[in-house]
Amino acid sequence: MKIEVVKNILDANAVIAQKNKSLFDQHHVTVINIMSSPGAGKTSAILETARRLKDKMKIGVIEGDLASQVDAEKVKKEHLPVVQINTGSGCHLDANMISHAMQNLPLKDIDLLLIENIGNLVCPSAYILGEHKRVIISSVPEGDDKPLKYPIIFVDADAVIINKVDLKAYLKFDMDAFKKAVKNINPKISFFEVSCTTGAGLDEWCSWLTAASKRKS
Amino acid sequence: MKIEVVKNILDANAVIAQKNKSLFDQHHVTVINIMSSPGAGKTSAILETARRLKDKMKIGVIEGDLASQVDAEKVKKEHLPVVQINTGSGCHLDANMISHAMQNLPLKDIDLLLIENIGNLVCPSAYILGEHKRVIISSVPEGDDKPLKYPIIFVDADAVIINKVDLKAYLKFDMDAFKKAVKNINPKISFFEVSCTTGAGLDEWCSWLTAASKRKS
Repeated sequence: MKIEVVKNILDANAVIAQKNKSLFDQHHVTVINIMSSPGAGKTSAILETARRLKDKMKIGVIEGDLASQVDAEKVKKEHLPVVQINTGSGCHLDANMISHAMQNLPLKDIDLLLIENIGNLVCPSAYILGEHKRVIISSVPEGDDKPLKYPIIFVDADAVIINKVDLKAYLKFDMDAFKKAVKNINPKISFFEVSCTTGAGLDEWCSWLTAASKRKS
Repeated sequence: MKIEVVKNILDANAVIAQKNKSLFDQHHVTVINIMSSPGAGKTSAILETARRLKDKMKIGVIEGDLASQVDAEKVKKEHLPVVQINTGSGCHLDANMISHAMQNLPLKDIDLLLIENIGNLVCPSAYILGEHKRVIISSVPEGDDKPLKYPIIFVDADAVIINKVDLKAYLKFDMDAFKKAVKNINPKISFFEVSCTTGAGLDEWCSWLTAASKRKS
């Protein structure tokens, strides 16, 4: 009797992520998975991005947090469609959570969907959600050595926003060393030096995002 | 036939953590598990603590990181016994990693063992290591809303160091709101407002640590 050997099967998360992506593509929604440490500025970046792009395209948001709705409330004030996912003790979003959240978003009216993942430089890296681009937000106060200590999150990322550059004057942060360490992990990644407080660098970031978005026509 | 019902069994991690703790107690070593977001200042706090206490007690360090030895090298320069644990893609330290690291530390010559966990506000909370105290480092640039979004890490903690208070002038951070949110989760927790850059608040923190330590006599 021949033993059947099962090979190259997608894991359960990847199967659902693929379905999510098909549905996003069908509705011409470009999806960005935003990952960072806690407090690096994911919500601020989402709000500042939406303020700059909302006249050009329709933006929706999924907010991931263990508990509370404080981020979703901030997004709601900008009159954007938003769904909050509370994971309880879960350390990352996964494709099935996104699949459920999608059902509560008007996909036909959204061009760009920004997903704020749980603040964590490790676990979210292992779970695709159905996104088109993966973006890391690092922040100056975290220090320039983070790529050396948490390389895994940079491996599959398309861009790194280096946030809080307005604090550079008060901190030791070697921008060249940071970028060099990231490029050693992932040479193709794009960098954006940004301050969500002063607005520096946000136009360049929004241009990149606009180029990455295939809007409904 | 009676069905045997197995109840109240410790999980594997807790069994090893208990063994670690027994061994620490036998050697009169006080062990502190230090948890935080990436870049909140765990290594800086360890270095500044060691500089202030090294004439009073013998200090050892275990450094946890996914990759690299940059933190362990900083500790080594202070002439402290140190072991680096590299977890690869692991998002937290566990008791078995500590059990192995302990074998490479001169426990009979150590009064206080500082363990730097992986930078992560979620996963480390679920794994006891055999420690006597659990300490969270939050930092001002992360924002005052972190206890609302990541409550789990504060539940069993004994103290919170609020680091980088020298940056308060440049950021919106409501100290009272932060402390209130933490106390809602854990009313018994102690707070230390600290700057590892200016040295502010470190003496109070070191006094607490000294009181918590049962040194060899």
